[in-house]
Amino acid sequence: MTPTITAFERSPDRGAGLARDMRVRWTLEELGQPYQVRLLSFAEMKQPAHLALHPFGQIPTFEEDGLALFESGAIILHLAERHPGLLPADSGARSRAIAWMFAALSTVEPPIVERSMAWLFEREQSWYAQRLTMLDERVRRRLGELSRHLGDADWLDGDFSAGDLLMTTVLLRLQSAGIVDEFANLAAYVARATARPAYQRAFAAQREVFLQAQAAAESAPAP
Amino acid sequence: MTPTITAFERSPDRGAGLARDMRVRWTLEELGQPYQVRLLSFAEMKQPAHLALHPFGQIPTFEEDGLALFESGAIILHLAERHPGLLPADSGARSRAIAWMFAALSTVEPPIVERSMAWLFEREQSWYAQRLTMLDERVRRRLGELSRHLGDADWLDGDFSAGDLLMTTVLLRLQSAGIVDEFANLAAYVARATARPAYQRAFAAQREVFLQAQAAAESAPAP
Repeated sequence: MTPTITAFERSPDRGAGLARDMRVRWTLEELGQPYQVRLLSFAEMKQPAHLALHPFGQIPTFEEDGLALFESGAIILHLAERHPGLLPADSGARSRAIAWMFAALSTVEPPIVERSMAWLFEREQSWYAQRLTMLDERVRRRLGELSRHLGDADWLDGDFSAGDLLMTTVLLRLQSAGIVDEFANLAAYVARATARPAYQRAFAAQREVFLQAQAAAESAPAP
Repeated sequence: MTPTITAFERSPDRGAGLARDMRVRWTLEELGQPYQVRLLSFAEMKQPAHLALHPFGQIPTFEEDGLALFESGAIILHLAERHPGLLPADSGARSRAIAWMFAALSTVEPPIVERSMAWLFEREQSWYAQRLTMLDERVRRRLGELSRHLGDADWLDGDFSAGDLLMTTVLLRLQSAGIVDEFANLAAYVARATARPAYQRAFAAQREVFLQAQAAAESAPAP
């Protein structure tokens, strides 16, 4: 049975590929697995039918053969364990690749999300400039550590893995801030990852959703 | 070979069991696996020997038979996959338990950590009270969603799992804020989890490290 994932009917990033369904789409493309997408409005995400799939009322979810999962990290791990391509066969290398998945989500992403949240909810406040300096410093410190680890390697630990996939999507959230470009090897790393055909296919698919929603809105009769 | 984990020589929480080695200790106790601990000073954590094990210079790390891992979530998953007790045998239930591990670390913990960071770095600032109200609201919303999902069940999905273990350690970080107590079923959930003998053994072991460091400091000759 083809799995179904959920995504925003209208992504707040206007098709920039920063919503978390992109991570799962990219994974499915890397693994060569077909999938279907069910689009949800913000109102639908908070209704009982969706909360039964995702207790925090977010996207993406994953459904296949009676199994329902939430949390993009868990969905990606579930898929990567069942189809070859995103986790090494060697047991130790596999655990290390999974460590990079957790590092992306628990160590690198939180200060980046905090920075976006500050922009969303505090940019009109008198303290915003002062906090932004502090948050940028925190993000820069993490990226410096990541850059030092990466060195001149192509990927974080051996071949491209689910850890690199997640780390790339996390770094892409900083795109507009320009901080990644301060670390030449990280900028090259993101460019290398997003040049992968699987990324390109996933990006085009999520962008198409945005373009169609926009076209539908434009062709709607004036109220 | 007995695995070795790393922990703070002097935990900033003064033995309250909130440092991330506690999660791994608790896991090892639940699984009945012996372990050794190597204590590190803050200076040692940032030196090349430790950075080779942990690119972000933190604790805990895990070493066994030539394999080195970092990220508490990844260490716990590695252990839970190799020893029975913290993940269901059924494949679907197993993926759902892992989803709760990711939910604890990527969805519930970040706003809680942001709240602690604000206290650490912004509590002297004019805006602190205003931000704290906002952060508390964000934490409360997550806890409300978690509480609604838990309902009157004992654990998040079936039997006690690695997901419950991680979620408990995340909720414990809010202990001093009193926010968990606003949700009676979550307070009971934390009490149920921390009453487990494995938790108690792990807590006593990390507390002993703090007590010994304190005794050593007190018996040191005056400068």
